[in-house]
Amino acid sequence: LTQDNPLLTRRTPRSPSLEAWPKYDAAVQGLRNYWYPAMFSTQLGRRLKPVQLLGTRIVFVREAGRVFALHDRCPHRGIPLRFARRECPGTITCVYHGWTFDVSNGRLVAALTDGPDSPIVGKVRVPTYPVAERKGILWVWIGDDQPVPLEEDVPEEFLRDDANIVGWFRLRTGNWRYAAENGFDEAHAKYLHRTAWMLTFRHLPAWTTTNIVPIEPGQWITKKQSAVVLEDDYPVVGKWPRRRWWKRPNTSRYYKARTPAGTGTSLRLPGCLRVASFPSGNVSHYEWYVPVDERSHLYAQFLVRWTTSPLEKLVHHSKYDLYRKWLFHKQFNGQDAAMVEWVTRDDGPERLFRPDKSVTAWRRMVEKSVRGEPVPGSATTTPEAPEIGDIDVASND
Amino acid sequence: LTQDNPLLTRRTPRSPSLEAWPKYDAAVQGLRNYWYPAMFSTQLGRRLKPVQLLGTRIVFVREAGRVFALHDRCPHRGIPLRFARRECPGTITCVYHGWTFDVSNGRLVAALTDGPDSPIVGKVRVPTYPVAERKGILWVWIGDDQPVPLEEDVPEEFLRDDANIVGWFRLRTGNWRYAAENGFDEAHAKYLHRTAWMLTFRHLPAWTTTNIVPIEPGQWITKKQSAVVLEDDYPVVGKWPRRRWWKRPNTSRYYKARTPAGTGTSLRLPGCLRVASFPSGNVSHYEWYVPVDERSHLYAQFLVRWTTSPLEKLVHHSKYDLYRKWLFHKQFNGQDAAMVEWVTRDDGPERLFRPDKSVTAWRRMVEKSVRGEPVPGSATTTPEAPEIGDIDVASND
Amino acid sequence: LTQDNPLLTRRTPRSPSLEAWPKYDAAVQGLRNYWYPAMFSTQLGRRLKPVQLLGTRIVFVREAGRVFALHDRCPHRGIPLRFARRECPGTITCVYHGWTFDVSNGRLVAALTDGPDSPIVGKVRVPTYPVAERKGILWVWIGDDQPVPLEEDVPEEFLRDDANIVGWFRLRTGNWRYAAENGFDEAHAKYLHRTAWMLTFRHLPAWTTTNIVPIEPGQWITKKQSAVVLEDDYPVVGKWPRRRWWKRPNTSRYYKARTPAGTGTSLRLPGCLRVASFPSGNVSHYEWYVPVDERSHLYAQFLVRWTTSPLEKLVHHSKYDLYRKWLFHKQFNGQDAAMVEWVTRDDGPERLFRPDKSVTAWRRMVEKSVRGEPVPGSATTTPEAPEIGDIDVASND
Repeated sequence: LTQDNPLLTRRTPRSPSLEAWPKYDAAVQGLRNYWYPAMFSTQLGRRLKPVQLLGTRIVFVREAGRVFALHDRCPHRGIPLRFARRECPGTITCVYHGWTFDVSNGRLVAALTDGPDSPIVGKVRVPTYPVAERKGILWVWIGDDQPVPLEEDVPEEFLRDDANIVGWFRLRTGNWRYAAENGFDEAHAKYLHRTAWMLTFRHLPAWTTTNIVPIEPGQWITKKQSAVVLEDDYPVVGKWPRRRWWKRPNTSRYYKARTPAGTGTSLRLPGCLRVASFPSGNVSHYEWYVPVDERSHLYAQFLVRWTTSPLEKLVHHSKYDLYRKWLFHKQFNGQDAAMVEWVTRDDGPERLFRPDKSVTAWRRMVEKSVRGEPVPGSATTTPEAPEIGDIDVASND
Repeated sequence: LTQDNPLLTRRTPRSPSLEAWPKYDAAVQGLRNYWYPAMFSTQLGRRLKPVQLLGTRIVFVREAGRVFALHDRCPHRGIPLRFARRECPGTITCVYHGWTFDVSNGRLVAALTDGPDSPIVGKVRVPTYPVAERKGILWVWIGDDQPVPLEEDVPEEFLRDDANIVGWFRLRTGNWRYAAENGFDEAHAKYLHRTAWMLTFRHLPAWTTTNIVPIEPGQWITKKQSAVVLEDDYPVVGKWPRRRWWKRPNTSRYYKARTPAGTGTSLRLPGCLRVASFPSGNVSHYEWYVPVDERSHLYAQFLVRWTTSPLEKLVHHSKYDLYRKWLFHKQFNGQDAAMVEWVTRDDGPERLFRPDKSVTAWRRMVEKSVRGEPVPGSATTTPEAPEIGDIDVASND
Repeated sequence: LTQDNPLLTRRTPRSPSLEAWPKYDAAVQGLRNYWYPAMFSTQLGRRLKPVQLLGTRIVFVREAGRVFALHDRCPHRGIPLRFARRECPGTITCVYHGWTFDVSNGRLVAALTDGPDSPIVGKVRVPTYPVAERKGILWVWIGDDQPVPLEEDVPEEFLRDDANIVGWFRLRTGNWRYAAENGFDEAHAKYLHRTAWMLTFRHLPAWTTTNIVPIEPGQWITKKQSAVVLEDDYPVVGKWPRRRWWKRPNTSRYYKARTPAGTGTSLRLPGCLRVASFPSGNVSHYEWYVPVDERSHLYAQFLVRWTTSPLEKLVHHSKYDLYRKWLFHKQFNGQDAAMVEWVTRDDGPERLFRPDKSVTAWRRMVEKSVRGEPVPGSATTTPEAPEIGDIDVASND
């Protein structure tokens, strides 16, 4: 009877609701000068692997054990380098005309179809992106400057030797900013996730009193709950939520730090959420919202258990493969996916309420402390190709 | 060999052909301040039902026997209320953060995750739309003012106690105005529908002389035929159409009023067509073109028979289910659907001819007599949310 | 993991890379005042056949052995004439209201539903396009002026009585200009097609020295190779390409003219490529890039063998059906299709190299010598309907 036409109901990239935070408002496709997780190491073999991040097409190459990332575009006619052939170690060769690039610095080392003395060699360079391979994950620096150490952008306990990481990368519809806001949003979990299968035996509180406090000023904020009300009596609605004998409240995890991640839910730049000691006491959940384009992001979810015991490692991996991936990362967080998609599609003004101070604290932190430039909305971003020299092709010698 | 790309061949919402009728031209998504049929009563059960009308997303709710319609958008973050849960009688609760609205007036009566004393309660209201449930149909008033009585917008015999209504709502591609013009267009039936299965044994006239006369000035126009020419001799073409022994002319129905609807084809605001005593003498056809967005409309078709005899009622329903729905409302009117879609997609100027005075009479009537404001073309329309008060969410108390 | 959204990554119709050639830059949808091949004669039977060319919808009609082409749009309400019925020889009748047009000149000869004395008859005309049926192909003139003789736009040996033509029309994604540039581009064949199945036993040279010389000034250019280097030693890359015992070089065909087409690869306006004596000594390949809209073209490929021997004709047809169509026109040229599509989708600047003087020579020739006006980018083009007279439809007499 009715129909939603996705072509007609798209939020404009810059929303009136975000005007109070102009940098955040402009960051439709993300924030430059940060490290982002791109995929698991095991996802990159001999085949080139293209990924779009922050509006830019990037191709990953594994070469003699090391990993490199280049702009996925041959500067000649714009053909993606993902189709490149491997003619010679340390290089990739564009499939169209045989332009051959050094994967480590993007320099054109040969234009095969123009002979060994081709005058364009050495005059063209494909932009490259620093890559770090740590904890079985490929991290990429997208920025204009020299990269900071990876440790500045990733929680330290995540990089510890005894951190055992399982997880899932998925491409999700919805702007990365609304994904981040959803993750840190104090109120929604207590209503939206009430029907999540993972919480079948858990009584969620009706409401809480929460303050947003910094962990590291300008980089991290966390939520501190000062009151947790399990049930209350509302005008009109009456007593809510109903107590069920099979549901038990469990707030103990907020007060016992059983993991190196500490306690609480924290959000940091450039869009990394930590839910410490959740969904059980000895693991912590991390998620990154890596911008892809205006309307989609790479949603990277991880569960970490800190242990050196081989048995505990095995239990951690098994639990994830058997049920945590499905119940938590898929069904529970799938409820959020629908919300993030709808907030992105909506074109009306927002009307915030008291618990949204978690959202506005995040917006303020981005606005004040962001390291790089916001990437505005547009189809795709072609990075400026470094101009080294010119060659005249119009003359017919 | 060739391909029509629907993304590239779209008529601009405002067509140069309609410039002589500026209000009509502007009414790309319809006319406000009218009653429109939205669905059969039986189509709305316990589940919320979303429908887009006049560019606005509306959700229908049945609550203790009564039906209500609200803007299908939570004012908080724009999530559709169609996903709402039913926590408490008389209210619906947005699935994202538990904002709870009184279905009868749209007022926010609780923000569950913010506790019973949430300061936003009473300060937010979702726009609501008056609903009438009459003759097994849900009618909705889309407008700014107090609704007029339903009887002002629906033909009186349609609402009579002895009117037995069968029919079909379907979402159809094409702008509502071209659907209305097609319905009242004098000439097309005599050519386009010549191949309709329903008219296999009917000889259609070659041409007729028709005048457009008002029923109620400014609200209704009807067609009066003064001459019906069964066959004629044309330059170039010769004798047309060919007589076939199995096809017989039948014009008697134009002169015998066997139903309370009288005779003839009539069109009224806001887009309701009546074809009296058609396709047989004791029933009349009605159709509404309810705007959905720029390129689609809800096409509501009804066949009415006036009787109190249980047997005649049964016959009426059976004929519809057995063949009239398929032959008339589906195949016959499906020929029109393709035309309306193509007129909407076209981007060139129109060139009208003599029989199109039916079309221009309708355009003039809309232009002069329309009650409400035209709804211009755009993705979707977010009604102004009533501002009752403000709440500061930026402070971190 | 990643996704290319075709809606978001579209090259703007006018590219910064083409600014040096403003007419060529503007010719997004082609060049008017030329003859174009539209389909094989056998593809047009009794059914009307719509084709979009140069942004214009055209319908082909076969009538008593002759072929006509009309604008595929009834001037009344814009319904495509492809749906027309055939009421009377020499005419087609629009399915909506029975407007009947003479196929030879597009004039409205009857408006059936308005009677024999309809005042609009003789006052409306559908634009028509001259058609020539030669060598089993339908050629259409798209232009404003009187057509030139077909011989001016088609290579003369292609039209010879002893030319036996086989081939394939297909609709291909990608702008026609990048298709033409790809066809004449000196360098890509020696790298991209290295993996084509058809060249399994052929050693392609590493690079060549090529000059672009005119055949007919302003109409034709051809490539002359002065050096062919089979293998070379490159910095970084080393010896390339590797010799294989099963691959043998074959450059003899460049120096022996065994067909009336002579030797070499030549390109002419409005986008017709000839590869003489290829893929074997006694046939020549021709291809046209017929613009359809901004992002697609009709790719017409032909293989010609000049002979009057029935046996040789049979061999020519059989070889094409058995393997040449699949190995050459489908797999080999399918490698190009992907490149042309990506160059069209790309939105960055180009960076040409020495062998691209073939491309720039073509751009210069179009810029200086083009006969008609370029057709700029837009959804579709509605040709100006000739205004013969006016009729007032607003009065209700």
